[in-house]
Amino acid sequence: MNALDELTESFSRLPGIGKKSAARIASHLLKTDSSFNIRFSNQILSLQERIKPCSICGAWTEEDPCPICSDIARDKTILCVVEQPQDVATIESSHEFHGLFHVLGGVISPLEGITPDKLRISQLLERVKLGVIKEVIIATNPTVEGDTTALFIQRVLQDTQVVVTRLASGLPAGGDLEYADRLTLARSFQGRVKI
Amino acid sequence: MNALDELTESFSRLPGIGKKSAARIASHLLKTDSSFNIRFSNQILSLQERIKPCSICGAWTEEDPCPICSDIARDKTILCVVEQPQDVATIESSHEFHGLFHVLGGVISPLEGITPDKLRISQLLERVKLGVIKEVIIATNPTVEGDTTALFIQRVLQDTQVVVTRLASGLPAGGDLEYADRLTLARSFQGRVKI
Repeated sequence: MNALDELTESFSRLPGIGKKSAARIASHLLKTDSSFNIRFSNQILSLQERIKPCSICGAWTEEDPCPICSDIARDKTILCVVEQPQDVATIESSHEFHGLFHVLGGVISPLEGITPDKLRISQLLERVKLGVIKEVIIATNPTVEGDTTALFIQRVLQDTQVVVTRLASGLPAGGDLEYADRLTLARSFQGRVKI
Repeated sequence: MNALDELTESFSRLPGIGKKSAARIASHLLKTDSSFNIRFSNQILSLQERIKPCSICGAWTEEDPCPICSDIARDKTILCVVEQPQDVATIESSHEFHGLFHVLGGVISPLEGITPDKLRISQLLERVKLGVIKEVIIATNPTVEGDTTALFIQRVLQDTQVVVTRLASGLPAGGDLEYADRLTLARSFQGRVKI
């Protein structure tokens, strides 16, 4: 196996990249400007060293606390709970939310051995007990595990001062009734709003 | 822009990778085993150093001459002319051809400033003049530029001893008449064979 085949093999192990795409990318890197390859290779090598979880919210960051936790302009009374660090970037890109985040690091899934103590739920309770937070929005995915986790967190927080809410679930904007699955349709009926 | 965003940006500059896939891959590399990242980063860094064009056929190789040119079991009387180095791997994977290759390094395209002297056509003529080659199969793509280049090569070689052939063009195997474009249909009529 030569250098080109080895690199193709590595690319094909990345999520969403098949064998043909991997070969195409490897060929591209062979012909591209070498300064790009030097920079790209260095970015991969230094990634895990430079990015760490924020000690407060658990999001990925280069500085600790992360830029969101240390931003004085953010609303500190409202907290959005997400499953994964990458969910923070997704919500940030919507510009819909201006509070703080809390990353769980997964969802409760007994079959995969993920029990509540493996998630950052006790840290969430500690943050809530400081008394500043007024509302906790649970933004776990609308899946069985995401719903179970949301319910579990609601129970954990029920003796505190906060209001616990959940992101609305229903038909996606621009979607089509014809393509909606049964569960999505059921949820859009249950969550119907007066117009 | 933090290390994760920088890496995402680099991935999104690769062919066939959009912004969302790039972010997904960067997150994956953050969580993956660090030994993979070290190896992967090194493969990218050393690629252009390790892979060079073969001095005989122009294919990408680590050793010069390449394993195909130096394989004594290959048929040295038949030569397959391709546009790009990656075409060699495509044809090799079909196991249909057992001769030698010649990589042009592109196709004639006056609009893009690619004139015949920019391609490895004079080297092809030199190889043919050695007298060992009996047939030259032109395997440029069935496009306007590929056809023009094939015709040009046929003219260059017409005073030599070799037979010049072109890969058949027509309906792809497993394809459907309904989805064939006009040009492909026209070519499949022109190239029809007696059964």
